[in-house]
Amino acid sequence: MGDLREDFTRHISSEFNEELEELCGDLLKMGGLAERQVQLALQAQEQFDSELISQIKDAEQSVNAWELRIDELVAEIIARRQPAASDLRLVLAVSKIVRDLERAGDEANKVALMAQQAAESTRFSTVGAVEVRAIGERVGRMLSDALTAFARLDAEMALQVARNDRDVDAIYQSALRSLATFMIEDPREIGNVLNVMWVLRALERIGDHATNVAEHIVYLVKGTDIRHLSVTNVEDRIRATPDRV
Amino acid sequence: MGDLREDFTRHISSEFNEELEELCGDLLKMGGLAERQVQLALQAQEQFDSELISQIKDAEQSVNAWELRIDELVAEIIARRQPAASDLRLVLAVSKIVRDLERAGDEANKVALMAQQAAESTRFSTVGAVEVRAIGERVGRMLSDALTAFARLDAEMALQVARNDRDVDAIYQSALRSLATFMIEDPREIGNVLNVMWVLRALERIGDHATNVAEHIVYLVKGTDIRHLSVTNVEDRIRATPDRV
Repeated sequence: MGDLREDFTRHISSEFNEELEELCGDLLKMGGLAERQVQLALQAQEQFDSELISQIKDAEQSVNAWELRIDELVAEIIARRQPAASDLRLVLAVSKIVRDLERAGDEANKVALMAQQAAESTRFSTVGAVEVRAIGERVGRMLSDALTAFARLDAEMALQVARNDRDVDAIYQSALRSLATFMIEDPREIGNVLNVMWVLRALERIGDHATNVAEHIVYLVKGTDIRHLSVTNVEDRIRATPDRV
Repeated sequence: MGDLREDFTRHISSEFNEELEELCGDLLKMGGLAERQVQLALQAQEQFDSELISQIKDAEQSVNAWELRIDELVAEIIARRQPAASDLRLVLAVSKIVRDLERAGDEANKVALMAQQAAESTRFSTVGAVEVRAIGERVGRMLSDALTAFARLDAEMALQVARNDRDVDAIYQSALRSLATFMIEDPREIGNVLNVMWVLRALERIGDHATNVAEHIVYLVKGTDIRHLSVTNVEDRIRATPDRV
């Protein structure tokens, strides 16, 4: 293992090195903005402030622009450098990861807009605040860890992200059940509870996207595609595989 | 414009032609399976039958296997053939499209599992059946049209898919509002209505994935990336751009 910078020193063409470094740097910048969208959305859920919405929209526009730019860079690098083996895996993984980062940001936007709706509703409510915080903190950390795992090409850390997703799913399912019960007990809260359910759903999707990013990193480092395998099977297989970068 | 087969005849290497044809053929096979998942899920919503669930699970496994296989084929083609220009755009678009097809299939699975839950619930209900059918038919057709647009490299048809997504979103939002009202009026139906809401949500996501596929096709044919643009702006720009394949 090692960081990205180190791995690229082995290329003969220093320009190619620079291009790959730029690509990975851009991905991390884009990831930082998606992370920011999530953090702002969670802030908006804690205490709504319309300023947060405009900051999220700015971040969203940058994320979208980065997505297009990185996809172009991927195509340029492939056309000009004809990468093979682990370089090609890296470039193709980046092209998949951008999509998940962009979508994680989209879900964060939804979370912020639902905070706005809740703030504008006539009926103040703190229902579901604990669940939103619990899941929000977890998926925010998953996204951040997935990006760190990419920067360090750390398959073990990426696997931890996938493991954490199981916890998030369990908390999410249990929160939905208790919110449904709460709704039946107090139908006046139906509007508020539905809002919280959509927020939780969006947060849970952010966890899914972080997990997708993590899966691409495992593929990148280990050369093993772990999509569509259960986490337990994956762990056994991955531990037995040496790093390939 | 023309079909994929025709476009590939211009390659000097007939093996390369065959590989690109194989890639596109595989994508269409995978797409057919994802479509089948959606159709089976809608059938399960109309009239639940546990046999449908096992058919959907079979289709899901094939879709997952195709996703991995197509991604491998993409990497092989890039490494061996070093495609440029429109060939490279095609190969990269395929690599993006598989992800959306797989996720559309995932959402179809959720729809089928919710049909199972509803069938097992003690309280029979037809609430939301009309909305599920209306949105289900539309997104099923969008997915099917997106695949046809790919097979024909037809940007106009792909744009129509994106336009249809606006209608689906409008129907979806209006259905959610009326279902929330219904819940408040008859809290005994809360469980059933929540189930319908999750079904509609999953169907709406299938429409989003079909739209993503369509956007990749427009990029492929026109060389213009229409992600993150509004449909109206896109239409003006696209009509002014000649096909590039």
